[in-house]
Formats: sequence, structure tokens, C-alpha cells
Amino acid sequence: MNNIINNFPLEYDAVILAAGDFPHHLLPIKILKQAKNLFVCDGALQNLLDLEIIPTAIIGDGDSLNDTLKQQFKDIYHQVNEQEENDLTKATRYAIAHIDKQINNSKRPRFCYIGATGKREDHTLGNISLMVHYYESLGIVPTMVTDYGWFTVGNGRKTFISMPRQQVSIFNFGCESLTSEALRYPLYPVKEWWQGTLNEALADYFTIEGNGRYLVYQTFDVKE
Amino acid sequence: MNNIINNFPLEYDAVILAAGDFPHHLLPIKILKQAKNLFVCDGALQNLLDLEIIPTAIIGDGDSLNDTLKQQFKDIYHQVNEQEENDLTKATRYAIAHIDKQINNSKRPRFCYIGATGKREDHTLGNISLMVHYYESLGIVPTMVTDYGWFTVGNGRKTFISMPRQQVSIFNFGCESLTSEALRYPLYPVKEWWQGTLNEALADYFTIEGNGRYLVYQTFDVKE
Repeated sequence: MNNIINNFPLEYDAVILAAGDFPHHLLPIKILKQAKNLFVCDGALQNLLDLEIIPTAIIGDGDSLNDTLKQQFKDIYHQVNEQEENDLTKATRYAIAHIDKQINNSKRPRFCYIGATGKREDHTLGNISLMVHYYESLGIVPTMVTDYGWFTVGNGRKTFISMPRQQVSIFNFGCESLTSEALRYPLYPVKEWWQGTLNEALADYFTIEGNGRYLVYQTFDVKE
Repeated sequence: MNNIINNFPLEYDAVILAAGDFPHHLLPIKILKQAKNLFVCDGALQNLLDLEIIPTAIIGDGDSLNDTLKQQFKDIYHQVNEQEENDLTKATRYAIAHIDKQINNSKRPRFCYIGATGKREDHTLGNISLMVHYYESLGIVPTMVTDYGWFTVGNGRKTFISMPRQQVSIFNFGCESLTSEALRYPLYPVKEWWQGTLNEALADYFTIEGNGRYLVYQTFDVKE
């Protein structure tokens, strides 16, 4: 375990568990265990119960749950039959409504997404891009944590805590100017997804500045 | 096994195995076993040997292979120390040079990519977008096959073999006009990655027409 993982924020206003690959890495498991407001897409409920974690609420269209579980958790199960939105968006909207009373409304709520990658690749791509959409349209600050690293949304100028030789990739969501400080390869307004990948932090932080939104991916492991 | 899998093309001018998640699904395994020209990124060699498959060539920077394997396969091991390109691109360039004499030069060679998703999500995103880049800049026709479905590159008008209720997602790579026939939700020039996901085939084929490039993802499973 390196310093990045030891200092990783564990507390969020809401944690959402989706039905992609359930995590094996200790950090996302720790976030699930410590979550005060934990919302699970129904397809991932069994994985959570295997860890003896009971969520705040279960959200789904009912297809993924057997009748025994539906009956057992009927008080916290919320069926949403809307077909226009995917499960991640349904869970996010439900969570926002639920935590609304708890949090200071002047601050954007911090959301952590777990289990949102893996399995069908179109779901992975969709869920990653939804981070930017939620930031813009739902007013939350999303972090997506996987078994290999994490995504955060950037907007304007932002400094990221890092470590020398941490692997970093940047995905451009509409910036016409995009620059970096303290990354091995100076960033430019990348157009293709692959063009912003395979970069590396030089120090304990790096800074990105863009005139729009971008996604930053940072790995747990540093390059040897 | 449904009709789509039974009729899936198994022969390619070159098959590239990358070091993401090694496949479990029978179809990509079958493609690996039948490949006449199989190029493997060195990080995936052991998985291939476990299936008793010997590749045409092994490509890598030498970091991922132990000395025993390097010695054992020294005749087919090609070390590429170029740092500007990722392993998938190194393997693709090597494969193009290698198969050049075999194939009819008037036709674009057909490449199949396996093991190119999973593990680090930035690699997954990079590799998926490289399909479009290879189509444009290297003149190949790439198909990426995973455990859940496959990606193909479209350009202009193209008809795709399908099945009723096959799940389909389309990712737009620069089209300003983009339409569909025989998909459940009519396609439009989607801007965000998630906007083209969660579509569905209505019949044994569907057609997409765009004034540029797009990626189509089709699942192995049909919705029940």
C-alpha cells in the first residue's frame, strides 16, 4: 500500500454501487464498508450481502432480484421502471433526493461510484462519461473508484494530489485549450481518447488547466 | 450459443492478443486457437502458453517477460523499445509488416483484437479508440472481441448482421449526421459516449449511416 492509498478520502455524501465487476481492491471495499449513505443497483446486492453490508437503499427495475431478496428488503427496495435512464442514473437521482436534507446545500455533494466498470464494455464507457454529465447536470462531485485507480472530473484549473511515477491519463470533454504542470508529457487539447493516456506524474501533485471539462484517471500503483 | 456466435467470422489476416483481461468466452478462445498469424503482447504470453498455443511473434519492451521465456522464444521475440506508442500499436505495426507479403494488397487486411479490455480502465479506453485510429491511419479493418461482445468501426453507410433483441451501442467519432435503421431507438449525432448506448436491434440486421467514423458495439447475448 502506498501513500496515495493511505491518504485516499474514504468519506462521501453518497456511495453508489453499480452492477459491473464487484471490486477486489481493499480501497473500494473499505469505502463500501464505511459508507453512511450507500445506494446499490439491484444487480450488485448479493455481492454486498456477501460482505455483510446492508445498504441504505436498493434501486432497480426488479429484473435482477429474486422474490426472497425482494421480500427480505422490501422496506429499502425502490423499484424504478423508467426505461430512458440506466441503473447508475436511477441510483444517483434517488441518492440525491435522499441525502438532500442531510447536507449543506451551498456545497456540491461528493459521490463515490464503485462497481461501475467491467463486464459489458459499452456500460463501462457509458458510466465513465456519465461522471462528466452528473457533474454538469446534477451538480455533484463524482469520483469513480475501480480495482486499478480512480477517475475525477476536472473543470478549469485543478491540482491533483499524486506521487512521482503515478500513471495518469486525461480524457478531454470539450476543452479547446488544455495544459498540464508536473506531468511527464505536456498535455495539449487531445482529440482522441488514446492521445491523453500513458502520462505520468513527476511529483507529489500535478495541475491541469482546461477551458471546459475533462476526466483524470490516476492509478493506485506507481511505475517501478 | 446463439446464431450470432455460430456465424461469427473466425478467420482474420492477423489476430492480436493484448495484455488486458485474458478471455473466458469460447468465441475469442476459438479465434486464438484458429489464428494463422497470431501476434501477442509479451504481458499476455503466459496465458497463451497455458492453452498450448504458440504465437507467430511476441512483441514487447522486455519488461513483462522473465529470462527463461525470453530464451525459450528468442526466435520469435521482437523487442520494441519505442516509448511513444503503446503495446497494441507496436504489435499492430509489427503484424502489418509481417503479413504484408501474404495478403492481396488491394484489400484492407482484417485484424482481430483480443484481450484489449479489462484491467486498467485508461488502457481500455485508449485501446477501444485506437480501433478507429488504426482504421484511418493504418488501413486495416479492426474487430475487437471481448467476453461480452465486439466492436467494429463504421464509416459512411454500413449494414450489420444482428438478431432481434441484440443489445447495441454506438459511439460517435466525429459524425455530424448519424442515423439508423432497424434499431429500437433512432440514432442521432450523439455527442456524449453514454447517449449512444443501450440501443437494441429489431431484426436480423441493422443499418447505420454517418458522415464520418463511428464504433458499433454488439453483445453476444440477446435480451430475454
